This record gives sequence, C-alpha cells and structure tokens, in this order.
Amino acid sequence: MVFEDLREEHFSTEEIYKGKIMNVIKDTVILPNGKKSTREMIRHVGAVGIVPVTEDNKVVMERQFRYPVDQVITEIPAGKLDSKEEDRLAAAKRELLEETGITADEWIDLGVYYPAAAYTDEKITLYLAKGLHFGEQKLDPDEFLNTELIPLNDLVEKVLAGEITDGKTQVALLKAAAKLL
Amino acid sequence: MVFEDLREEHFSTEEIYKGKIMNVIKDTVILPNGKKSTREMIRHVGAVGIVPVTEDNKVVMERQFRYPVDQVITEIPAGKLDSKEEDRLAAAKRELLEETGITADEWIDLGVYYPAAAYTDEKITLYLAKGLHFGEQKLDPDEFLNTELIPLNDLVEKVLAGEITDGKTQVALLKAAAKLL
Repeated sequence: MVFEDLREEHFSTEEIYKGKIMNVIKDTVILPNGKKSTREMIRHVGAVGIVPVTEDNKVVMERQFRYPVDQVITEIPAGKLDSKEEDRLAAAKRELLEETGITADEWIDLGVYYPAAAYTDEKITLYLAKGLHFGEQKLDPDEFLNTELIPLNDLVEKVLAGEITDGKTQVALLKAAAKLL
Repeated sequence: MVFEDLREEHFSTEEIYKGKIMNVIKDTVILPNGKKSTREMIRHVGAVGIVPVTEDNKVVMERQFRYPVDQVITEIPAGKLDSKEEDRLAAAKRELLEETGITADEWIDLGVYYPAAAYTDEKITLYLAKGLHFGEQKLDPDEFLNTELIPLNDLVEKVLAGEITDGKTQVALLKAAAKLL
C-alpha cells in the first residue's frame, strides 16, 4: 500500500509542563484518514555539537555524567542555544570556548541531527572545527566535565565497536572521519 | 581542571506527567560539589531500529511524517518495545514484520544509540537484518508510512550530504556501510 499524503494536521495544543530545559505539550492532530489522534512531545530550544580536531587528527572529547542514562559517557562538546533565534554557528563558538577553552579558525557545517523526531523538535547542528587555539575552560560552577584528546581513527573504532553510545557523537565522528581520513 | 568524580546522586523524584509514549519526571540530584540541582527528563520504554539489507546491498527504508519536526522524513524501520523487559531482538523482528512485512534469516547487532542522554533515558538498539523474505505489511489502522528500496551507497551519500537528518538512521546506515561496503 502506498499513501499519497502522510501529513498530520494540527488541531489543538494542550500545555503539560513548562520546564527549565524542555516544555512538554500534547497536541491533537488529524491523521491522513481524517481520524484524530494525540502527539505527546518535547519543545526544545535546539542545540549544537562540535568536533574540534587538531592538525594531526586528534579530537577534543568530553567525559560527562548523564543522569538519565546513569553513566559517565564520552561525548563531543555540545550545548543548547540561548534562544530559538540564536545564530547556530555563534552558539557553537560560545559552547566550544566555555567547555574546552578552544577557539577555531575554520568551521565546517556537518549537517543536521534530529535526536528523536518522534517526540522532540530538538534540532542539533553539527560542526567540524579546525585550526584550534587552546585556552582556559570557562565552566559554570555547577558544570562538571573532563576533556581528553583522542585520535579520530581510535574514536571511529570505538563507535563501530559500540563503545561510544551517544547519538550525536556517533554521527559527528563518523561524518568527520568521512571528511578527514 | 580534572574532576575525579563526575557522578550525580539521586535525591528525590517529582512525577510531572504520565503519558502514552513518555513519562516526565523532575529529579533533585546532588552534584559532585555537594550542591543540589534538578534534572528534568523523559522516561521512555526503549526502542529498536533495523537496517534490512538485500543481497545486492539495497535497504528497505521508510517515509514517515514526524509531527514534532513537521516533515516527512526518511528513516530505517524502528519501533518501541512493548515493555522495558521485552527482548530487544524479538521486538526488532516484530517491528520489522509489522512495518514492512519482512522476515530475516540473519540478525547482526549494530550497538546502542542514546538519542539524547541529557534528557531522556531512551535506549535504541540497532540491528542489521540480512537474508530477507518479503511479505505483507501489518500496519495499525492509524499508522501511515511508505517503504522504498534504496542502494546503501546512495543512502550513505545522503547522510554525508545532510539529506538524511534522523539521528538513529544516520548512525545505523553509516555503521551498516562500515560492515558491508
């Protein structure tokens, strides 16, 4: 069977929760068959992720505790936009500087990553940052993360072996490797 | 600065919302510096995603409208577990059969994908399915998706060009290509 129209139309919105990092809403939608259904979802401001790579193809990675999955995981530097309207490249430069103290001469767009399009509108834009200058981290007093310099080819092996489990990090590293290695 | 302990400890839980596909909670945690903070997050049952690949390296892909991102997007077959305890491989076989009518002789684990470890505990297990037998789709009456057979190398190009934006799909296709191409 082939459906000619897959779209669902917005009918109404119920606001469930207004939080610090997410709002939760429940929309009633009209399905392609005319029936009504509901869609629970997160409204998120959006985010950026960065692969900061040195001239000898080492990547500045972060070790960070992620409460929802109850693990310290290895991730690329990343962070939320200050607002929906914030310029994404500007946000990427800010987050990289805050979390790692790094500024970069060259920024390459690695494309869009939707983490979970079934239930969040979060859109992450991924970047490759080259020509790195190392300085001082500017972490918030309540932010805790360690940084580490790891060869990109080792990271790709870890992704393929299932040892790196963070989604945006998997995508960003494999895309960076396709460009650089 | 290097933090010796990055873990946050659970202090208390506030239940915000019990929904159909997600529960929302707000936990108070103890940070490594002893201060308290809050963590808003989604509790999700978990999911599976499948790359069903033919002997000539074509992949059965889906076109599906995703309301939160307001787009019809190209995805691998995927679906939620029936319960936290459900065997993940069994869930993958069920979802592939329902959405595409396909059964497969060989199943290869492609590892874990955390879509957004900062605010959801959702864990997706990815699989490569080979030795495909094509049958009848068994969609729910309120489920709308189209399937399409696309060469894996074309899909990899689309991922690298930023034309495939769904996170689990990007990871699964790049990992499948690393195994097969």
